[in-house]
Amino acid sequence: MARLALGIDLGGTNVRAALVDRDSGRIVAARKSPLGSRAPEAVAAAVVAAAREAAAAAGVEPGQLGSAGVGVAGQCLGVSGVVANAPNLGWRDVPLGAMLERALGLPARVANDLFAAAWGELRFGAARGFSEVLVVFAGSGVGAGMVVRGHLVEGARGVAGEIGHVRVRPPRGGAPRRCGCGQTGCLEAWAGGMNLSARVREDLQAGAATAVREVVGGDLARVSPAAVEEAFARGDAYARDLWEEIGELLGTAVANAVTLLNPARLILGGGVLMGCPGLAAAVRRHLDAAVSPSAAAGLTVAQAELGDDAGLVGAALLER
Amino acid sequence: MARLALGIDLGGTNVRAALVDRDSGRIVAARKSPLGSRAPEAVAAAVVAAAREAAAAAGVEPGQLGSAGVGVAGQCLGVSGVVANAPNLGWRDVPLGAMLERALGLPARVANDLFAAAWGELRFGAARGFSEVLVVFAGSGVGAGMVVRGHLVEGARGVAGEIGHVRVRPPRGGAPRRCGCGQTGCLEAWAGGMNLSARVREDLQAGAATAVREVVGGDLARVSPAAVEEAFARGDAYARDLWEEIGELLGTAVANAVTLLNPARLILGGGVLMGCPGLAAAVRRHLDAAVSPSAAAGLTVAQAELGDDAGLVGAALLER
Repeated sequence: MARLALGIDLGGTNVRAALVDRDSGRIVAARKSPLGSRAPEAVAAAVVAAAREAAAAAGVEPGQLGSAGVGVAGQCLGVSGVVANAPNLGWRDVPLGAMLERALGLPARVANDLFAAAWGELRFGAARGFSEVLVVFAGSGVGAGMVVRGHLVEGARGVAGEIGHVRVRPPRGGAPRRCGCGQTGCLEAWAGGMNLSARVREDLQAGAATAVREVVGGDLARVSPAAVEEAFARGDAYARDLWEEIGELLGTAVANAVTLLNPARLILGGGVLMGCPGLAAAVRRHLDAAVSPSAAAGLTVAQAELGDDAGLVGAALLER
Repeated sequence: MARLALGIDLGGTNVRAALVDRDSGRIVAARKSPLGSRAPEAVAAAVVAAAREAAAAAGVEPGQLGSAGVGVAGQCLGVSGVVANAPNLGWRDVPLGAMLERALGLPARVANDLFAAAWGELRFGAARGFSEVLVVFAGSGVGAGMVVRGHLVEGARGVAGEIGHVRVRPPRGGAPRRCGCGQTGCLEAWAGGMNLSARVREDLQAGAATAVREVVGGDLARVSPAAVEEAFARGDAYARDLWEEIGELLGTAVANAVTLLNPARLILGGGVLMGCPGLAAAVRRHLDAAVSPSAAAGLTVAQAELGDDAGLVGAALLER
């Protein structure tokens, strides 16, 4: 097997390609390109260009690599290589794997970006050495990767790990919020960064008294989870209540997944959790309170270690 | 490998032992004995006696069998053979596997009874032929068995599948109920048969207007899920509201497990679900409403097929 593997992280606005050392998980060369058109052919061409540039920087031809792996922010149907639904790209049922295999002359594995990141953390990050792992990322969306007996859990259609779309009920009642997936009441409708920001904007427009307004200088476009965290750090009551509510929803959902799966290692990551320590503390508190004691015994919890590189490294090393 | 395997189902009041044909899942001979003392040594002796009788009825010596499997209503710590907690037996940290191995002269695998039943349904029941399976049983307790890539998910300590102890919030509010596990707010505190009966008794004592009172002839000791179902069938409003509430809690919890795991096959069983079609219909309705559409696509749902024999058959055939 070739020493280097090609990993690709396909988001809604950029594509990143990297050559990864299979033995160390080290990124040997990487390229990042903005996406122009989101048409599947144009995106595939941008992916191939980034991959060729990264390979050239590492001094290899793509054909010399054993395989390529792609993490996509969307639902990917297992080994078929089909992206069933990628809202950020506006895609439905795009056979990305087959398109890239033709263009690169390599077998290409397509997977959800959080699967890929979970795999990266398992192989070379905070879950290294564990065979029963749950990884939960809360960023613009919320998702999970699960490892059982050392293998990623993909599910029958390849869409396992959708913890962002479990149904939850907020502690203080209120109308269920609509999720990007079309359902109402999903965890992500409350705890996903994009939905969280939208809700705070609504509250500000409705006249909520909160320091978030000062933090963003009155500019609603600047509302973000980080702005709420800043208000929280200033002792703002609105931010405190919001973090308590989101912390309970997210912490309880993570606890329930731990109770169901009994992992040895829980990894928490993603931009919202990593960037908002006040929220992360509330999540941990509610996690500890809600998890089954028998599943909690022996569980260790850690922050993700690979940051933005987890998806690239994991995609490169995905099992076929 | 011997053609026959020894399966044992250890409940709180009885032990059942059976010789099971490995190729067909057929029970060749079975014995059931009441438990006298619940002291570990006495229970182990009763298990061994039942096993020897069942083996004799099948015309074999226990030593001729390749291995034994035991399903226990309690938390079992994986391959260690230790029963960590079996409330019905009053056990904590009993090394049942080692005790039976000594007495039977056979390797003995100890597992949660719902793991065993899930495995029985997988090998010879309603999940035959599927490699991604979720089995949920609601009886006196609530539990799950999960199969990923054709293998049981045991978790790091062997306590995976505790869906009865996920934290839920009832749709109509109210104080969280205490669960047998010591926590409050567990699914089982509402949806487990024993807790359900206790709650209906409390409501009757508090003067609730419901046909359940007529169904049990005023005898609170006869209150059971079946009595609520009978009242439901008579059009009783209390029973209808209760089934709606429990149906939402149980259906949503099952939906969330499906969303997380994306199984190809969901099996619903256990005495409460199998004996209460009105409740089962509410569970199915809320399951369908709450499950993620991408995980629901291609999912088939079926009732357990092996009934009370699932645990015996599954225990006999457990993987080591």
